Amino acid sequence: MSKYSAPVNDMNFLLFDVFKADQFWQSNATLAENIDRETANAILQESAKVTESVIAPNSRNADEEGVTWNDGLVTTPKGFKEAYNVVAEGGWVGLAGDPEYGGMGMPKMLSAMHEEMMCGADLGFSLYSGLTAGACVSINAHASDQLKETFLPNMYAGTWAGSMCLTEAHAGTDLGLIKTKAEKNEEGSYNITGSKIFITGGEHDLTENIIHLVLAKLPGAPEGSRGISLFIVPKYNVNEDGTLGEHNALGCGSIEHKMGIHGSSTCVMNFDGAKGYLVGEENKGLACMFTMMNYERLFVGIQGLGASERSYQNALEYAIDRKQGKGSVKTADKKPESIIVHPDVRRMLLNMKALNEGARAFNTYVAMQLDIAKFSDDSEVAKAAYLKGQLLTPIAKAFVTDMGFDSCVAGQQVFGGHGYIREWGQEQLVRDCRITQIYEGTNGVQALDLIGRKVAMDNGNTANVLAKEVIQFAKDHEAEFPDELNQLIAAVDLLSAVTVDVLKKASSNPSELGAASVEYLHLFGYVLFGYMWAKMMVAAKNVEDKALSQSKIKTGKYYFARILPKIMSLKLQIESGADMLFTHNVEDF
Amino acid sequence: MSKYSAPVNDMNFLLFDVFKADQFWQSNATLAENIDRETANAILQESAKVTESVIAPNSRNADEEGVTWNDGLVTTPKGFKEAYNVVAEGGWVGLAGDPEYGGMGMPKMLSAMHEEMMCGADLGFSLYSGLTAGACVSINAHASDQLKETFLPNMYAGTWAGSMCLTEAHAGTDLGLIKTKAEKNEEGSYNITGSKIFITGGEHDLTENIIHLVLAKLPGAPEGSRGISLFIVPKYNVNEDGTLGEHNALGCGSIEHKMGIHGSSTCVMNFDGAKGYLVGEENKGLACMFTMMNYERLFVGIQGLGASERSYQNALEYAIDRKQGKGSVKTADKKPESIIVHPDVRRMLLNMKALNEGARAFNTYVAMQLDIAKFSDDSEVAKAAYLKGQLLTPIAKAFVTDMGFDSCVAGQQVFGGHGYIREWGQEQLVRDCRITQIYEGTNGVQALDLIGRKVAMDNGNTANVLAKEVIQFAKDHEAEFPDELNQLIAAVDLLSAVTVDVLKKASSNPSELGAASVEYLHLFGYVLFGYMWAKMMVAAKNVEDKALSQSKIKTGKYYFARILPKIMSLKLQIESGADMLFTHNVEDF
Repeated sequence: MSKYSAPVNDMNFLLFDVFKADQFWQSNATLAENIDRETANAILQESAKVTESVIAPNSRNADEEGVTWNDGLVTTPKGFKEAYNVVAEGGWVGLAGDPEYGGMGMPKMLSAMHEEMMCGADLGFSLYSGLTAGACVSINAHASDQLKETFLPNMYAGTWAGSMCLTEAHAGTDLGLIKTKAEKNEEGSYNITGSKIFITGGEHDLTENIIHLVLAKLPGAPEGSRGISLFIVPKYNVNEDGTLGEHNALGCGSIEHKMGIHGSSTCVMNFDGAKGYLVGEENKGLACMFTMMNYERLFVGIQGLGASERSYQNALEYAIDRKQGKGSVKTADKKPESIIVHPDVRRMLLNMKALNEGARAFNTYVAMQLDIAKFSDDSEVAKAAYLKGQLLTPIAKAFVTDMGFDSCVAGQQVFGGHGYIREWGQEQLVRDCRITQIYEGTNGVQALDLIGRKVAMDNGNTANVLAKEVIQFAKDHEAEFPDELNQLIAAVDLLSAVTVDVLKKASSNPSELGAASVEYLHLFGYVLFGYMWAKMMVAAKNVEDKALSQSKIKTGKYYFARILPKIMSLKLQIESGADMLFTHNVEDF
Repeated sequence: MSKYSAPVNDMNFLLFDVFKADQFWQSNATLAENIDRETANAILQESAKVTESVIAPNSRNADEEGVTWNDGLVTTPKGFKEAYNVVAEGGWVGLAGDPEYGGMGMPKMLSAMHEEMMCGADLGFSLYSGLTAGACVSINAHASDQLKETFLPNMYAGTWAGSMCLTEAHAGTDLGLIKTKAEKNEEGSYNITGSKIFITGGEHDLTENIIHLVLAKLPGAPEGSRGISLFIVPKYNVNEDGTLGEHNALGCGSIEHKMGIHGSSTCVMNFDGAKGYLVGEENKGLACMFTMMNYERLFVGIQGLGASERSYQNALEYAIDRKQGKGSVKTADKKPESIIVHPDVRRMLLNMKALNEGARAFNTYVAMQLDIAKFSDDSEVAKAAYLKGQLLTPIAKAFVTDMGFDSCVAGQQVFGGHGYIREWGQEQLVRDCRITQIYEGTNGVQALDLIGRKVAMDNGNTANVLAKEVIQFAKDHEAEFPDELNQLIAAVDLLSAVTVDVLKKASSNPSELGAASVEYLHLFGYVLFGYMWAKMMVAAKNVEDKALSQSKIKTGKYYFARILPKIMSLKLQIESGADMLFTHNVEDF
């Protein structure tokens, strides 16, 4: 596979030219202490160095070698341990962690960019540290001080890893069905018994200990999702002095053989009366887990972008190198030309570029909402940002990964036959990226979350606030790019009209929400990417880097001309309504 | 993987209710001798039996085991040899072959259905016999009687296989660049020297001999694609008495490691002065090969459908079996319900069903054009069908495989996490299907063939003839399904308007064709699938099988409501034109 080149320039442009992160950071006492423009740039440069030179070189071999299971022990591919040590020693696991427990306290806007580089370098590898950071978010938000002191410093330091143990064989999307039991011991701990599947990083050889966050049910707990509790269950028990004690009564029964992310272990985890510690309150476990899930969902969107960016870089290099046929513009020279002269190759590359850069801007925008919600001293501002973050999370997860997968497929297509051959690495990106549309709640579940919980249950209020924000921005800058900004206003109006229409129909038939959901999420996503491109085009007018400025404006115009029109068909598909989905009896399928 | 169930009912419906194949066959002296309704049905039943019980059971293991190369010899997965013997002994390789040389002389309409079953059962396995049948088409059309007598009977009998050797490392889409040389011997044969890559079935252990069709250049031949000749180059030379002689001077240098179709060998073939025999005239090889290519391209569309049909069957079974969550329609019962109650799961299944059945009808329609062109005694009728077949071939290849791939991805999505696990087989279908968008001319190349050669160079004449046919059909049956048939008329008008617009713009800028090509092919495909659905809905009203009738009408209505509206955005994307693709200099990417 070609080498990975971290898109640091674009990240700096987003942070400082588009989203004015330095102004936001300086205006906030907590952030101002930890971060400024120079620090951020140094972190991005260092992250680029590590991901490009230490992590990316392992990714092709890791796909071929995969993880291996032997009698409960999991061995990661060659080079992973050394690479993980570099990540741990660089403090990267705790980049956005709580400084009180050894984290670096960096904003999500910045750590999201580090995560993208990790995923671009090697998606499978990135999950070990990524899920650990996610587990820390949940522990830090809900666990007792004692548990935090016991676990967080080693997790931030990368010497211990984390995992999320939710799914059981019969309980995936529907976690209310889980059967894993928790029984309270006299000294306050719990015994956890049950079997979990699809546990990413449930077992591996990268760290001294693995801290599992496990969902389980107490005896007599309410049925369904209201009776679930969350526990910390370490692989090795931790003594009072912080040293490691006995191996807990848990083990990895097997690993899955998957389509991709072969470097990541996906484990069956068996808990046989393992000692665990309650996080948060009894029966409130799902809410505690969801604190983590929202961060994880943004992380999954970032994964989709990481793979897609790598695919774009490879495809662009191939399109310049590969000579085949002649362009229709200049045919005087009889020699074959780079395939980038062909309109359809350009179309594929520009689609990828426009969607990747739109996704990077969008992820940064969502991360900024999480930062404002977390750090702002103004509770009204924080709450508004929190709601916006909630609304946008399913879009960041599902739309960005759907676009990322399509882009990976397009990047493979640019390679022609070579795209199907493993050694080039393009097909690996398709296989790796595919999981991002499935795990952490399938993209269908995300779409239902968006239209059901985040829009309908909110009566469309937050969506309205956002629509007003976009229209205000478009009106403020209309004179600069009149065609595109008027198109954006029309797109927002279309989205708002569809929202009103679907909510109205759903009031008499709840199935209307599910029937509209996926196309609605895509419609929403395209409109918001339009907003991101409008912001980038406006910012690009004022940057010194003329190459970047020109490229941004050209790509933005491409997005509005060639991609945003997809919303017209989505609107019609949504309007066809739910009845059309329910005329078929099961035997008619 | 679930078992494969050949869609024989749907095939019978298409042949006899939709396309009135029996009337066509009976009206033609040549066909009437070989085929009637009962024979066709018996062949479909027997094909179903072989593919379901002999071929499909190997497919999962074949993916894991793959083909292996050792010192020039290629070993196919366990069970392939036994399965291939059944295929050979059943006469399936020569199903549509010339009866003069031992073929069964069946129409393409029927052999296309057998091919779909083969591909649904195991795409990788299907290529060995499928490419052999394709090679026979080329030999039968262009080779001398002596060559035909020497090679065709054994190839039809399945004792010898065929391969197509076109691509070289530096010459894929642009075959004009090939370097393989042919030098004439005194006795009339040629010595072939060069190296070919990506040769499907170039070497394997299934047959006694392998007959390679090789493109090469004679000394002093014109440059580019006008200087290419086609040769038969057997693995083992054939003695005058028909027995096998010495191993020819050729060999398999290595095999590729691919994303999918692991059971199919993809070979580097080295020719080192191998003895070959000219097919057709010198320097006219590309035209001879294209006779085969058109059949192969329809076969590739069939492959996309085969994988997609298998994916649909698996997904439907899973959606009925898997219980998770509760539908919004009936919530009285607290138990989890089959996920098929969820609107979005239904949407995915219905998309797959509507596209698969549309594709099956379309493939049959295209095959019928090839049959009319081949068998009709009326040269005007034959020529019109030939032109229509030429127009439709790139759509059958590219649109059907693009839809097939999307459907395989959707079928994987229905499985949630299990869709990513190899043992379920759903992800294999995604990997297997992916190649169909790439080989035999990438789908981008097909799109350029459609809009450039088949529409623009023809001044849109054949496209117009077809448009009139669709509108006539819609008007004749408007009263039966007024909403859908008026929507179809509007869709054809939209397609015609886009065609006129693009051709006009292209007259001053040839890049407009390439810029529009892929979206144009999709637009064309959706409209033609609409035509197929209209034909199926109309035919369904009069069939005795009420279950099939109802299902067809419901699915047809779904297609018009939920899928056909995609053309509105495609139109807008096409209208954005070529300029938008050429504002970026290479450094702006």
